[in-house]
Amino acid sequence: MTSLRRSPEKIRLPLGFSFSAVAAGIKVSGRPDLALAEASGGATAAALFTKNRVAAAPVEVGRALVSTGGRVRAVVVNSGNANCATGRDGIQACQRVCREAGKLFGVPAAEIFPSSTGIIGVRLPAQNICAKLPELIAARSASQRGVRAFAHAIVTTDTRPKIASVRFRASSTEGSTEITVLGIAKGAGMIHPQLATLLVYLFTDVGASARELQPLLREACDHSLNCMSIDGDTSTNDTVLLLASGASGARVRDVRTRKKLSAALTEVCQSLAEQIVSDGEGVQHVIRLFVEQARSREEALLVARTIAHSMLVKTAWAGADPNWGRILAAVGRCDAPIDPIDPSRVQIFIGSQKVCRNGIACAFNERQAHRNLAQPVCDIRVQLGRGRHAVRFLTTDLTAEYVRINADYST
Amino acid sequence: MTSLRRSPEKIRLPLGFSFSAVAAGIKVSGRPDLALAEASGGATAAALFTKNRVAAAPVEVGRALVSTGGRVRAVVVNSGNANCATGRDGIQACQRVCREAGKLFGVPAAEIFPSSTGIIGVRLPAQNICAKLPELIAARSASQRGVRAFAHAIVTTDTRPKIASVRFRASSTEGSTEITVLGIAKGAGMIHPQLATLLVYLFTDVGASARELQPLLREACDHSLNCMSIDGDTSTNDTVLLLASGASGARVRDVRTRKKLSAALTEVCQSLAEQIVSDGEGVQHVIRLFVEQARSREEALLVARTIAHSMLVKTAWAGADPNWGRILAAVGRCDAPIDPIDPSRVQIFIGSQKVCRNGIACAFNERQAHRNLAQPVCDIRVQLGRGRHAVRFLTTDLTAEYVRINADYST
Repeated sequence: MTSLRRSPEKIRLPLGFSFSAVAAGIKVSGRPDLALAEASGGATAAALFTKNRVAAAPVEVGRALVSTGGRVRAVVVNSGNANCATGRDGIQACQRVCREAGKLFGVPAAEIFPSSTGIIGVRLPAQNICAKLPELIAARSASQRGVRAFAHAIVTTDTRPKIASVRFRASSTEGSTEITVLGIAKGAGMIHPQLATLLVYLFTDVGASARELQPLLREACDHSLNCMSIDGDTSTNDTVLLLASGASGARVRDVRTRKKLSAALTEVCQSLAEQIVSDGEGVQHVIRLFVEQARSREEALLVARTIAHSMLVKTAWAGADPNWGRILAAVGRCDAPIDPIDPSRVQIFIGSQKVCRNGIACAFNERQAHRNLAQPVCDIRVQLGRGRHAVRFLTTDLTAEYVRINADYST
Repeated sequence: MTSLRRSPEKIRLPLGFSFSAVAAGIKVSGRPDLALAEASGGATAAALFTKNRVAAAPVEVGRALVSTGGRVRAVVVNSGNANCATGRDGIQACQRVCREAGKLFGVPAAEIFPSSTGIIGVRLPAQNICAKLPELIAARSASQRGVRAFAHAIVTTDTRPKIASVRFRASSTEGSTEITVLGIAKGAGMIHPQLATLLVYLFTDVGASARELQPLLREACDHSLNCMSIDGDTSTNDTVLLLASGASGARVRDVRTRKKLSAALTEVCQSLAEQIVSDGEGVQHVIRLFVEQARSREEALLVARTIAHSMLVKTAWAGADPNWGRILAAVGRCDAPIDPIDPSRVQIFIGSQKVCRNGIACAFNERQAHRNLAQPVCDIRVQLGRGRHAVRFLTTDLTAEYVRINADYST
């Protein structure tokens, strides 16, 4: 039986960062909703943001910060309010929080990276947040407890925090050094990242310029956070931020260290993607969808997304129903880029069993397929018979619980 | 309070057609599952079929029939089995039913139009169907009872049959004649028609060539059946068939009759679309979505479909939750054809209240908006501020009941 990675017991801390969280009264529940990550010596930054044209105020502010190649001293995140569709007021509220945090750290507002997540269209209570900043800053610590507090405070409908970390040894002409990559994420609904996803914070103590970091971040995300979907809705607040403190003393200049860092970033992002999907709203079954033999990676992704967003396919999965006809019908309605997909070349597998051969029914053990689908994680493989490209896509079933969670969020 | 049209008490019968249904044991429930519509003097035909590249056997056979401009003597429909993804066997099973029915009517197999609807990937029991044909044919009658029997036998997860009819008077140089248009449809899930939808049968007693019928059919569908969606899944069996018997004595040659016929067809199709959406699987609320001020009709449709297929928007509607932020987020992630939609020009209305002004929150009476959304039918208006094109799109909420219905269909 396969299973997905959960948040680990042991968290490896990169040097140069400290973390904290407090309750600022943004969430009605009174739970912690304001989080801080600080790089005491500053950090270089790379980031990816939502492709949604309705972008939240902190996304606009964060985008400007990163595009100027600026350094980041601290990240301030609130949950319970997305600060989106709040117009000029929203931008000003966001800037006010950055200015206040900058003042307390003795740095310009442009060194504070803001994030928000929660309901859209409600004014951000900037004053309440600013009033809590001294307490938040005083509470920071470079400890596992700090990381867990941060991870807990940024969640909304998540049932658990998402944390992953990897440590590796980099040896260069300058000697041998340990480098650590730590990732923290939130997200359980509105999950269909487009080049970025949700709120994901990656921290490393390697030294790297923003220009060196950006391609590493994009590559790691392409194979992890960009290959998953819970409900096909792309959030207005999606943000992935990578901060490098340089505190380990190692730099990414040499090729071997860069490769190891890339692998570590990808591993952390894949673990976070698995944690996010398995904690998806109302999710009972996670599906690892392998779309193979496509003409291009884009084609494989298109097919994977069409299957993963079909309400009929997702509800069949909720019932552990091996109704492969719905998967085939979803493949059939894909707008394939160049020439149409030929259904008579399509093979579908549930677990290790072939359930559809050359686009038509074939004999299979239905009970076994049902048992496979009833597991917490099930592999489904769709072969298109057109080429050599493949994608591994993480997705979920659609349950009555998802409907319940989302039918009364704001009222 | 607005409401949608239901199937009428009184059915107007076009001349030249008779109808019947029997139980052939395809449905496990033992309910009627085999239906017949016969044009005793034959009829000209126009049809639209699914754009899904996985097309059922009867779609392939019917497409060939219509493309050769052939006449139709009878339509034979079974429910409970889609005869899709059944390969060469499926085509042969379909042809066998047509051959047998043709023999009984004394016409070539090519004058029998076949349809199937139900589960994908299961072999069609052609022998059982053929054995029931004599009883089916003997039972036919040109009566309301016959029409109702036909409409009941073609349903699957529908909770009620869908019937609409219109009668109008055409006066030409040849005198004044009454012309009738009757429509019968089925469908409650896998509803996102692409140029055709589900199973829809339109009967008229006007005289018209296949070439005259086709553009009338397409136009009527574009403004009705192609502007609705329940779950965004396009069926493999979608078929709209229009048959013209000519039995009224009137012909569509003159412009006025053609215009009246076009209006009658559109009215019948719109009524059927409303009946289908309001009987959608698990549907509690029907949403009439008006997307206005788009650059083109295609752009308006794209925005309408993106909103209508968002699981988060649909679940908010299920809870009568005026969470307009999710609608705005869906607009923001549309792949607008030429240049991006500017959120700051977007207005959103729930009922008659504006809830989002220029892409940002505005004060509104939340209780009133909640009350509007709690009605069986609610109007939502999205204005893009880009042009003069608009679309009226019928869609539904996404409820836990939809999940329940679709989580155990085949098992």
